[in-house]
Amino acid sequence: MSLLTDLPRIPYEGPQSKNPLAFKHYDANRLVMGKPMKDHLKFSLAWWHAMSATGLDMFGPGTADKTFGEAPGTMEHARAKVDQGFDFMQKLGIEYFCFHDVDLVPEGKSLEETNRRLDDITDYIKAKMQGTNIRCLWGTANLFSHPRYMNGAGSSNSVDVYCHAAAQLKKAIECTVKLGGTGYTFWGGREGYETLLNTDMKFEQENIAKLMRMAVDYARSIGFTGTFYIEPKPKEPMKHQYDFDAATAIGFLRQYGLDKDFKLNIEANHATLAGHTFQHDLRVAAMNDMLGSVDANQGDLLLGWDTDQFPADVYETTLAMYEILKSGGLKGGLNFDAKNRRPSYTMKDMAEGFILGMDAFALGLKKAAAIIEDGRVDGFVKERYASFDSDLGRKIRKDEATLGELAERAIKQGQAPLPGSGRQEYLEGVVNSVLFSGE
Amino acid sequence: MSLLTDLPRIPYEGPQSKNPLAFKHYDANRLVMGKPMKDHLKFSLAWWHAMSATGLDMFGPGTADKTFGEAPGTMEHARAKVDQGFDFMQKLGIEYFCFHDVDLVPEGKSLEETNRRLDDITDYIKAKMQGTNIRCLWGTANLFSHPRYMNGAGSSNSVDVYCHAAAQLKKAIECTVKLGGTGYTFWGGREGYETLLNTDMKFEQENIAKLMRMAVDYARSIGFTGTFYIEPKPKEPMKHQYDFDAATAIGFLRQYGLDKDFKLNIEANHATLAGHTFQHDLRVAAMNDMLGSVDANQGDLLLGWDTDQFPADVYETTLAMYEILKSGGLKGGLNFDAKNRRPSYTMKDMAEGFILGMDAFALGLKKAAAIIEDGRVDGFVKERYASFDSDLGRKIRKDEATLGELAERAIKQGQAPLPGSGRQEYLEGVVNSVLFSGE
Amino acid sequence: MSLLTDLPRIPYEGPQSKNPLAFKHYDANRLVMGKPMKDHLKFSLAWWHAMSATGLDMFGPGTADKTFGEAPGTMEHARAKVDQGFDFMQKLGIEYFCFHDVDLVPEGKSLEETNRRLDDITDYIKAKMQGTNIRCLWGTANLFSHPRYMNGAGSSNSVDVYCHAAAQLKKAIECTVKLGGTGYTFWGGREGYETLLNTDMKFEQENIAKLMRMAVDYARSIGFTGTFYIEPKPKEPMKHQYDFDAATAIGFLRQYGLDKDFKLNIEANHATLAGHTFQHDLRVAAMNDMLGSVDANQGDLLLGWDTDQFPADVYETTLAMYEILKSGGLKGGLNFDAKNRRPSYTMKDMAEGFILGMDAFALGLKKAAAIIEDGRVDGFVKERYASFDSDLGRKIRKDEATLGELAERAIKQGQAPLPGSGRQEYLEGVVNSVLFSGE
Amino acid sequence: MSLLTDLPRIPYEGPQSKNPLAFKHYDANRLVMGKPMKDHLKFSLAWWHAMSATGLDMFGPGTADKTFGEAPGTMEHARAKVDQGFDFMQKLGIEYFCFHDVDLVPEGKSLEETNRRLDDITDYIKAKMQGTNIRCLWGTANLFSHPRYMNGAGSSNSVDVYCHAAAQLKKAIECTVKLGGTGYTFWGGREGYETLLNTDMKFEQENIAKLMRMAVDYARSIGFTGTFYIEPKPKEPMKHQYDFDAATAIGFLRQYGLDKDFKLNIEANHATLAGHTFQHDLRVAAMNDMLGSVDANQGDLLLGWDTDQFPADVYETTLAMYEILKSGGLKGGLNFDAKNRRPSYTMKDMAEGFILGMDAFALGLKKAAAIIEDGRVDGFVKERYASFDSDLGRKIRKDEATLGELAERAIKQGQAPLPGSGRQEYLEGVVNSVLFSGE
Repeated sequence: MSLLTDLPRIPYEGPQSKNPLAFKHYDANRLVMGKPMKDHLKFSLAWWHAMSATGLDMFGPGTADKTFGEAPGTMEHARAKVDQGFDFMQKLGIEYFCFHDVDLVPEGKSLEETNRRLDDITDYIKAKMQGTNIRCLWGTANLFSHPRYMNGAGSSNSVDVYCHAAAQLKKAIECTVKLGGTGYTFWGGREGYETLLNTDMKFEQENIAKLMRMAVDYARSIGFTGTFYIEPKPKEPMKHQYDFDAATAIGFLRQYGLDKDFKLNIEANHATLAGHTFQHDLRVAAMNDMLGSVDANQGDLLLGWDTDQFPADVYETTLAMYEILKSGGLKGGLNFDAKNRRPSYTMKDMAEGFILGMDAFALGLKKAAAIIEDGRVDGFVKERYASFDSDLGRKIRKDEATLGELAERAIKQGQAPLPGSGRQEYLEGVVNSVLFSGE
Repeated sequence: MSLLTDLPRIPYEGPQSKNPLAFKHYDANRLVMGKPMKDHLKFSLAWWHAMSATGLDMFGPGTADKTFGEAPGTMEHARAKVDQGFDFMQKLGIEYFCFHDVDLVPEGKSLEETNRRLDDITDYIKAKMQGTNIRCLWGTANLFSHPRYMNGAGSSNSVDVYCHAAAQLKKAIECTVKLGGTGYTFWGGREGYETLLNTDMKFEQENIAKLMRMAVDYARSIGFTGTFYIEPKPKEPMKHQYDFDAATAIGFLRQYGLDKDFKLNIEANHATLAGHTFQHDLRVAAMNDMLGSVDANQGDLLLGWDTDQFPADVYETTLAMYEILKSGGLKGGLNFDAKNRRPSYTMKDMAEGFILGMDAFALGLKKAAAIIEDGRVDGFVKERYASFDSDLGRKIRKDEATLGELAERAIKQGQAPLPGSGRQEYLEGVVNSVLFSGE
Repeated sequence: MSLLTDLPRIPYEGPQSKNPLAFKHYDANRLVMGKPMKDHLKFSLAWWHAMSATGLDMFGPGTADKTFGEAPGTMEHARAKVDQGFDFMQKLGIEYFCFHDVDLVPEGKSLEETNRRLDDITDYIKAKMQGTNIRCLWGTANLFSHPRYMNGAGSSNSVDVYCHAAAQLKKAIECTVKLGGTGYTFWGGREGYETLLNTDMKFEQENIAKLMRMAVDYARSIGFTGTFYIEPKPKEPMKHQYDFDAATAIGFLRQYGLDKDFKLNIEANHATLAGHTFQHDLRVAAMNDMLGSVDANQGDLLLGWDTDQFPADVYETTLAMYEILKSGGLKGGLNFDAKNRRPSYTMKDMAEGFILGMDAFALGLKKAAAIIEDGRVDGFVKERYASFDSDLGRKIRKDEATLGELAERAIKQGQAPLPGSGRQEYLEGVVNSVLFSGE
Repeated sequence: MSLLTDLPRIPYEGPQSKNPLAFKHYDANRLVMGKPMKDHLKFSLAWWHAMSATGLDMFGPGTADKTFGEAPGTMEHARAKVDQGFDFMQKLGIEYFCFHDVDLVPEGKSLEETNRRLDDITDYIKAKMQGTNIRCLWGTANLFSHPRYMNGAGSSNSVDVYCHAAAQLKKAIECTVKLGGTGYTFWGGREGYETLLNTDMKFEQENIAKLMRMAVDYARSIGFTGTFYIEPKPKEPMKHQYDFDAATAIGFLRQYGLDKDFKLNIEANHATLAGHTFQHDLRVAAMNDMLGSVDANQGDLLLGWDTDQFPADVYETTLAMYEILKSGGLKGGLNFDAKNRRPSYTMKDMAEGFILGMDAFALGLKKAAAIIEDGRVDGFVKERYASFDSDLGRKIRKDEATLGELAERAIKQGQAPLPGSGRQEYLEGVVNSVLFSGE
């Protein structure tokens, strides 16, 4: 089977099913907390991994055949990817997709040629979208692969490269708007450095901010009302990337006045490369009202690179969906920035990867809702800070207390009693209870 | 509540129970694959964490009160720990315990004094064991805490320290035999180095092996028929410890002819500090017929030190129990080398920690058995290597093939076909199906 | 030798000296770039490691004897530490010290008692300072060791603990002012979480900011004109600490309007635990005009905890001093938050540790100055961004360009030429040339 | 400059030279400890990085042009690489090279075609070697890049792939023998697993051993008298590779009786990925008499993948050469398994990379010899274990002591005195003294 169109439609068959090509948990229209699963999750297919990547790694070429019967590097191939991709999305019930410019078409000899190809393919995609529920979640420009971007795009030391980046960016925004994209994403894969010995970090970061500002202004001028996203990643390919993690990216956006137009696109595996849990970076984004969208994948904490695995760990998906539900839900969606392992190279493996990930998130959604409904976790947290509901606590919270006053109080009270137990083991037990309530 | 004896007996109430002080999955006599849960799991209480540790860390003293109404450093306290510990084990249905010499009694001014105290306390424990099902899983000597062991015990540069270690070792073996211990464990916490600049690694490793040899000879001479264990750990407290991981420890044991008397005691968190999964080190031990016992805990892969958390991740416990079941079961048991987080400081937290861990392993056992009974994983693995069942495959396996013959065959066959897909995503989906079949 | 007062004065003897108790590179009054070494470096002794810590780790008690002939826990001991410490500083030519409240005196039964002890000891220290060049670099309160701070101080869930922290903070500020301290530092060792399951991160961070605000207001009200510092550390003891790294701490300070009063105290080993080089976090602080002071030590990148080693790697000290010189020098100083390895337990080892570190930084200073004077590195960086000196470049830099204009330019120019080589290997060769020019 | 032949010859100009294209420390015929530098170091060019790699990474294609005026994938290109490579080696004074089969020629449609190409190119190389001092250090077969090896070669689940590997292996051995190679290397880049869920680890390891056995037998039968090497690497590309580190590989070789024919090829960056220092893995190999050859490069300890940088850190090269000198020198050599950073893409960068690495090792050699001649480090180590020169110590060392005897001795001696200080800080100071004696 070399075509995705040879796959059957993927039905929901429930937890007992042993059919590899069926969902066990993702039941698109099932209501969870009053909203259909599909609207909570808004799964998205990533054009780069799903339609383009073949399993290449640093030690060997790809194993999967994604030619779909056409010669790579041609517009026929570009259109075959659209046909196959839309068919695949419909079979799995995926209603969103994300793209880089160069995933859609092969780069031409000149910007004009590439832009013409982008015009063609977006016409083709737009026509394809007619009569379907499929929408564009977000678009982006690949400003990191071509050798010209070896030192970044916004952070490049070359003003010519900076202009080239601006041109790609402008076109990618136009394509996103044309396809009705709800967002536009910046992933700064080479916006960073290899060595501080040759780097003016301040200069580079200012230039990145300027480029983003110009992009926002242009996009708004052509009617884009969606959200811009920064997708943090700490390293790889560069030794250091400026959008290190959620906290760093938020600090950057605020410093340069970009926080009104931007939110974050949090990727699980990028968070862990930065030394955080996925849940942590979701929380940081959410509590700053900067949680926008999610790149759904899973890393391997014993490996030091971005493995982009299909999400499988239901603890992770549950805690992620818990943060998302508590924050009021995503404006964006769950984009599968995930790929099969290199030895899983068939079209069936690709379907099984998506099923794995969609089921893991569907189960995570159900379980996160169950944790909230159960109430023990949230109730414990509320209770834990109750001492700040006192008069004194409220005074502190309202910035009406002074150090002297608090110190006096402390001396009067004598030894402060220990705070109540954090009961971590109990809470972990509660989570296990909810996760495995049916066992 | 400052006494463990204030706790109620912990009943099994099933998955739906919301009682924090009840088991949801551990049902001691329930049969799994024809054997009671408790005989699969053989849970053990570790005297150091459970009865002695208070939550001290590098940045502050302990938070938990484990005086049990007696002054620390006295034999009254030592006996109170026995009383409390046995009561706790009986309330949770734990039938094994492990100890270091210095967990049982405070060290005296001289070896003789310490040894007399050990005689007393082991009399006391032995009497306590009468009429219970409680047994000693293994004993050990603490050859790493006292300043004299700053450079290790077997690896010490000082022959006087080496002798002191021998004396402690001898007594700890005698105590273990007296208490009917089924094993004796070496954890080489300071058998390693801080800097290679001052270290003769070969000399040190030879001396460790000699000490182990003497220990085996002595133990056998006094009738010890149990198993010796090495517990690998790669680092912490030292920069490097010689028993780095399972593969390294097995190589060491074979090099010095100790592999007939020793097996490994694999600790989850030590495996991960060495860059392996827990399952990996269990597999390495098992396939070399060196899997003996397990220190059951859980680390945090984003932290670089031994957190010794109570096991909570059911993926981990399932895959661990899968390896253990496939290897024919443990000779040793599951020793809770685990402790509460510092802010979980009450006696109730301690009970909840054990309940968390015992339930996680009980559920892991049920799920591992279910994976085996399901058969899809094992069947896939068997099928995957089927090409070696051919005539040629068998010839290779019997060492009857030559390079020339295989090369000739390759040339004749033309391009080798790709191996079949590894189907990792499918298999991860199968595991999720088994884990969450009731949801 | 159990007293520091038994040590000889440490002379400068030059690079050829083989005297372990002599400086090979630190020559206090030697001019480097027109300023005496000692004013560039402003070495400081940390009361906690130097005068108090004995080498305790999680696996055993201390090895070094720091009783100085007095019983620990008494004011006699507290004064003996002052006597020994001042003698030691004078013998090494160290002109600054840093302290936590509880390093200076043993905590009393009540805040009043502790405060009285602090009054006594600061009188004693103040008298001791008379006629010496020794000054207080910064002071701080230990708001992390006592069990009451198990969940942090500013981030504690208990309003009583929050008040107790305020009281300690107030007194520590008063002591700092009394001793003429040039700074006051916040290290948030437990300002973070063990598990997100029980944590309201937003609430906690707001409360920390409020406490800092009150501290600033109080300190200013009693005449403190020095700088406040945050010392970032990502984890340990907690699973996650809020002041993760320089970028995160700067974002926090700006968010809560604290950036006018605060700068950063960057610690080498904390930077590396966060996944950054020491140089990186210095650069981030400096380019935001937030570089204040430095905790000088060295970690082991293969170990996951804070080893706080005396700095020995001259690459590290050179690159650190390069950042410091380029930023115009430190307002604060180089505080040796460093300790001997546990098996280096004598008073002589302590002296040798300081000599190692002071020589490493002195050599680093000379080499950093040599890199700047050599000019090849700085010249290369300047040249590297030269294309932004063009008309177009300047327009971009002045926010006068638009995306459309840059895109047009890109289309007109055709394929952007590759940027010039980053020449990392050449630059690393230049650094080696400067470091080893005399070999 | 697109040709290496445009480079000038690289002279030795001494430490003061500012000529980027000159050696500052590598003076080939200078005697160190009585032997010319070039015989200590035996530098080798790696055909894959130097002549073939262009800087491709997972996020973009290569930046360097290594076509040398010919079309990639042709024998003209293969020969151009030989011409350029030999010219480059002669200009730098490199006397050894290493190769994989597929670095030398593009793979043909069939094994026969590839083999014919290998015959041609080895004829060409052999002719080229005439009249030069250039020799083959070792050869190897690439058994990891082609999709057929997605699950490894010796560890493949497919007997057809196993045979294909045997055929490549046979030919690569023949080429190595033809070129007079002094060694043959196995790097098991895919000999490992992606997931234990589909893996029979024991079966796979046995099959690898069998393939190695057949390879040895064949090679000896055609007159190969050189050494076989295993090159350990813990992970990347696979989740886990079986030759994890030196200790693991030695254990494997002994288990399967391969330790007479094999030694280890230790790579700096692979050691650090396994959690060890480079020096550690050299020491482990050397003390087991298994140190054969070295892949000279440098990793970045803050990055989790193999960066293969040119060695620049003189601490690292000094400690490596110290281990090598103490072990009696390498049978193999120092192979530059190193590549330029992606933004260093010119032919001049390549020369500067080699100069950086060769100078770093030359300086490391001089400094290692100086440490040995200085004698303080070795003297300290010898003295440190002196207590084992006593009668009792000797008895222990000769396996004539018993546990009972040592215990008795300990009781008689009373409290063992603390061992003498390890003096790590002093020793680090000695190393700095030797490294920077001229400053």
